[in-house]
Amino acid sequence: MGNADYECPHRVAIPPAKPFLTSLKSGVKETLFPDDPFRQFKNQPTSKKFILGLQYFVPILEWAPRYTFSFFKADLIAGITIASLAVPQGISYAGLANLPPIIGLYSSFVPPLVYAMLGSSKDLAVGTVAVASLLISSMLGKEVNPNENPKLYVQLALTATFFAGVFQAALGFLRLGFIVDFLSHATIVGFMSGAATVVCLQQLKGILGLVHFTHGTDLLSVMESVFSQTHQWRWESGLLGCCFLFFLLLTRYFSKRKPCFFWINAMAPLTSVVLGSVLVYLTHAEKHGVQVIGNLKKGLNPPSLHQLAFGSPYVMTAVKTGIITGVIALAEGIAVGRTFAMFKNYHIDGNKEMIAIGMMNIAGSSTSCYLTTGPFSRTAVNFNAGCKTAVSNIVMATAVMITLLFLTPLFHYTPLVVLSSIIICAMLGLIDYEAAIHLWKVDKFDFVVCISAYVGVVFGSVEIGLVIAVSISLLRMLLFIARPRTVLLGNIPNSMIYRSMDQYPIANSVPGVLILQIDAPIYFANANYLRERISRWIYEEEDKIKSTGGSTLQYVILDMSANGSIDTSGISMLEEVKKNTDRRGLKLVLANPRSEVIKKLEKSKFIEAIGQEWIYLTVGEAVAACNFMLHSCKSNSVTVDKFDAQDNV
Amino acid sequence: MGNADYECPHRVAIPPAKPFLTSLKSGVKETLFPDDPFRQFKNQPTSKKFILGLQYFVPILEWAPRYTFSFFKADLIAGITIASLAVPQGISYAGLANLPPIIGLYSSFVPPLVYAMLGSSKDLAVGTVAVASLLISSMLGKEVNPNENPKLYVQLALTATFFAGVFQAALGFLRLGFIVDFLSHATIVGFMSGAATVVCLQQLKGILGLVHFTHGTDLLSVMESVFSQTHQWRWESGLLGCCFLFFLLLTRYFSKRKPCFFWINAMAPLTSVVLGSVLVYLTHAEKHGVQVIGNLKKGLNPPSLHQLAFGSPYVMTAVKTGIITGVIALAEGIAVGRTFAMFKNYHIDGNKEMIAIGMMNIAGSSTSCYLTTGPFSRTAVNFNAGCKTAVSNIVMATAVMITLLFLTPLFHYTPLVVLSSIIICAMLGLIDYEAAIHLWKVDKFDFVVCISAYVGVVFGSVEIGLVIAVSISLLRMLLFIARPRTVLLGNIPNSMIYRSMDQYPIANSVPGVLILQIDAPIYFANANYLRERISRWIYEEEDKIKSTGGSTLQYVILDMSANGSIDTSGISMLEEVKKNTDRRGLKLVLANPRSEVIKKLEKSKFIEAIGQEWIYLTVGEAVAACNFMLHSCKSNSVTVDKFDAQDNV
Repeated sequence: MGNADYECPHRVAIPPAKPFLTSLKSGVKETLFPDDPFRQFKNQPTSKKFILGLQYFVPILEWAPRYTFSFFKADLIAGITIASLAVPQGISYAGLANLPPIIGLYSSFVPPLVYAMLGSSKDLAVGTVAVASLLISSMLGKEVNPNENPKLYVQLALTATFFAGVFQAALGFLRLGFIVDFLSHATIVGFMSGAATVVCLQQLKGILGLVHFTHGTDLLSVMESVFSQTHQWRWESGLLGCCFLFFLLLTRYFSKRKPCFFWINAMAPLTSVVLGSVLVYLTHAEKHGVQVIGNLKKGLNPPSLHQLAFGSPYVMTAVKTGIITGVIALAEGIAVGRTFAMFKNYHIDGNKEMIAIGMMNIAGSSTSCYLTTGPFSRTAVNFNAGCKTAVSNIVMATAVMITLLFLTPLFHYTPLVVLSSIIICAMLGLIDYEAAIHLWKVDKFDFVVCISAYVGVVFGSVEIGLVIAVSISLLRMLLFIARPRTVLLGNIPNSMIYRSMDQYPIANSVPGVLILQIDAPIYFANANYLRERISRWIYEEEDKIKSTGGSTLQYVILDMSANGSIDTSGISMLEEVKKNTDRRGLKLVLANPRSEVIKKLEKSKFIEAIGQEWIYLTVGEAVAACNFMLHSCKSNSVTVDKFDAQDNV
Repeated sequence: MGNADYECPHRVAIPPAKPFLTSLKSGVKETLFPDDPFRQFKNQPTSKKFILGLQYFVPILEWAPRYTFSFFKADLIAGITIASLAVPQGISYAGLANLPPIIGLYSSFVPPLVYAMLGSSKDLAVGTVAVASLLISSMLGKEVNPNENPKLYVQLALTATFFAGVFQAALGFLRLGFIVDFLSHATIVGFMSGAATVVCLQQLKGILGLVHFTHGTDLLSVMESVFSQTHQWRWESGLLGCCFLFFLLLTRYFSKRKPCFFWINAMAPLTSVVLGSVLVYLTHAEKHGVQVIGNLKKGLNPPSLHQLAFGSPYVMTAVKTGIITGVIALAEGIAVGRTFAMFKNYHIDGNKEMIAIGMMNIAGSSTSCYLTTGPFSRTAVNFNAGCKTAVSNIVMATAVMITLLFLTPLFHYTPLVVLSSIIICAMLGLIDYEAAIHLWKVDKFDFVVCISAYVGVVFGSVEIGLVIAVSISLLRMLLFIARPRTVLLGNIPNSMIYRSMDQYPIANSVPGVLILQIDAPIYFANANYLRERISRWIYEEEDKIKSTGGSTLQYVILDMSANGSIDTSGISMLEEVKKNTDRRGLKLVLANPRSEVIKKLEKSKFIEAIGQEWIYLTVGEAVAACNFMLHSCKSNSVTVDKFDAQDNV
């Protein structure tokens, strides 16, 4: 049964073997430098290369010379707007991390300056974020009680910030930024909504004016803590909180309807703080159960290099906290940077951004700042306020500096409940139920990932939610490979095109030929499955032929168009399939094996075994050849042995 | 720029949406029941279903009625042959696990009987294996010293066997057998070779007649232990060991050259034991530094249910040991069963085998047996001896029973060094350097997996080697998805076929059209990469056109033939690519989106955004449409806006 008479219209090419080092080099380059960052350095004199290199790592050198006064006017307005948001948010989020409020203000001074020099985003507004703050308090709080041992707790928070920065910068330098990509969109939606829910729940402490509160972040602990001390609830605090929350939600609603009034929303937190402080000062509400911030130290960030507790027994906790919060902060910062870069049509290099965010946190950790990144809310305000460059961050830092130098006493009477309202209002915007509905409609699996992240965060802890969601996402990818779809192809009428018979009901099967396509690379994880699945396709087809009485099966064509890769287990699988088909008197034919696959099939001598003449460029040509053989066989009345493949003892 | 005039030859079909539960059900079925085990139950009366079900779980009921005397003759010979191997191997491997030698004999009695009833392989010979024995001693030995507390150690070994059995059976019942597939061929080659090396190294204790020996299994500990006590080496023992090793290797070499003399190799271990015992008995060598087995208790397996130490503080160690050794044993047993089933052309159901092996270990753990599976060497001997069914296991068990009842005193003078020689000889066959060379030739990545498993086992520990190899294998799969290949397609001359220009140097690019193919599902892990990579392809193409002066780029065709799946992050990526191409004045065209992809694109309204008329069944048709548009555009002198995409501040 040869096909020497049949002339094959096109041959499948076997690309020449590349030397090992060449292919290794190109593999590493595609994996770690997919964006070809050295492109601009090519064919440049050394001095120019040096300048370009400096500009690569310190982008301000590149754009500062072209900075104009009209840019500055825009950046000034944007900077002042985000400063008005930064001050109350800084104080609030520091409270969420169980850190002294002043550290929240410090964190809006140094990191924005560093980012303005090193960052490549024109819109990112730097600051602390709620989720990372919550993570710090939950992870460090397990080891050190912030009320009993505040000094050690602050040291650990700064140390964690340092390690977060080192980890972030290292990811960037080592071009491993793609690790952040493993937090899928669905994971982030579920995780952020869950974290926002948890943060809102934590605010019940402030709203209800409770003094004692659980250290747990899960729904059950919080509910138990709230309802076990109903007699401690303070109506004054609650009333104030609800009023301000209503005010903040109203301004947000208004700004959403009319985007040109974005500044109303941006100014609302500061307005609330001022109103609240004045109210407390006038009514002396601090003596009637409304807790206030109290004294804030005047002056700029004190250096804190000596506070980094590398020798502490809790240093491993700090490292762990740093790595987890660092990844979360990176994911938010880079996603936000990319989103706004796309609006303005410029490009952001993820790895470069990681270095910038990492350096800003390393610098922050030695100047009494805790973890910062580019929060979505503040960046959106910055963008809407018309910022042109990172100078808006410098303006914000200057405004915060003035606050630190002169205005801190004004916050003495600021009620904590206002800060809680600000946090709740910001967090409610993060609970993205519309995105979850969209996920359910488009991709059920993504919805499962999203919901498990949410449930994990709300009922377990932030880390549990994250681990569950990432595991399920990875499982999906592994499952895609471990259980690839195999589809039956049929002929689209009046064409040489073969497509899935499930997708195209008009496609017709070819008598005597079984055409299969496998939708994934053939790897060890699916080799056994595919072997069994292919033999099931064969006997199902034979059963069908038996019951309907068509022409007997003679050829099995494997369309390998969708097999991007194969490993040695996969090749063994093909060898076994070949043995199996030979034993049943069937001929195995391959169509369109891809570059990598055909190279390996050649090296492992599988091509010799199957015969080069049984490998075709398209399914159409393979079927044509099979049909040619079928008819010439029939006319020569060649009989094909059929081996009885039933299991007998 | 529409293409309303152009008539599309074939339309891409959007398969009708299936109800959620239907698709969930078919997904679960494909994942857990790919081999359709209930097929034979269809359309059968209830009584028949019951019988079939019973035969499904107890295969002996199915084949016993058809058992003939000629089968029995063959099985008798095979059974006696493997029994002659089982007795010395059982004693040796028990020593490797630091268990009393008699437990090794017990383990060749009950488990083969259980397997004969439940197993579906006709060739598998049941027994203990070296690697699992070594694992037991290294994992349990860390917690309990077998010399100081032998009773507890034996209890833990039996408990670990019990948990291994439960875990194995549970995997089978839950249809999770594919977990074993994650041990790739390359992993197993490296792991087995490494374990064999480690086992050989451990035998230096016996060969050199050392009394004190390290509990570590890594090369460095063993070498230190050996060379720190050179004055303790016993030449008598060494000489005896080398002689027997030479004899065993010689018989193996001879049997390999002449397969019909397989029995010489099979009988050699028992011959060595007899010769060694006689020699020691005659020369009283046990008084000159040659250690002997000593007294073995007569009698059959005592029940050991009461010895299972569920309440022990070390129970978690036993669970962990059970799970790891259970998986390793399963992997070996199933791989061996499948290999020999393929020779004889019958099918083995992996999940059913797991239940059989699991039940045999559960039964074993309550009758003083430790972990058993189907070792390759013994099964190969069984196969070569011409076994027909699992009755050969029953014959072997009977022979072992006779040994236990009457012959144990004969082993009193058996020198340990002979057992060491038997182990070394068996292990040298497992070091498969030829397979490693093959891996290097065919697939460099598999070679890395193999070598890291080997190095991990030899220099670290058995568990470390396993974890490293499995992680690298999984990383490869993730990397395949995280960094998919994107290839440039060109036209094969005189055809409508488009193929990779790397693979087919004869393929020509189409002026004004960039055709890309992505080789993996579009998932969150690669969405960012692909977005950047596609825009790099576009600007590289534009640079090329600028420098060579061809016709300007107008169309980007994405061939989606190899994209088996997409998730919501992938869809967002496509939306961004569309925005990006729109901004550059390019038109995005899709070719051959697959069933799952097109369904999701429709649900997410991406098809509306791109326009149904820009989705083609093949690349050829897409190119034809683009060419049609290009020329009609030119003749109408429609100019296309080109947006300057350079980054300016």
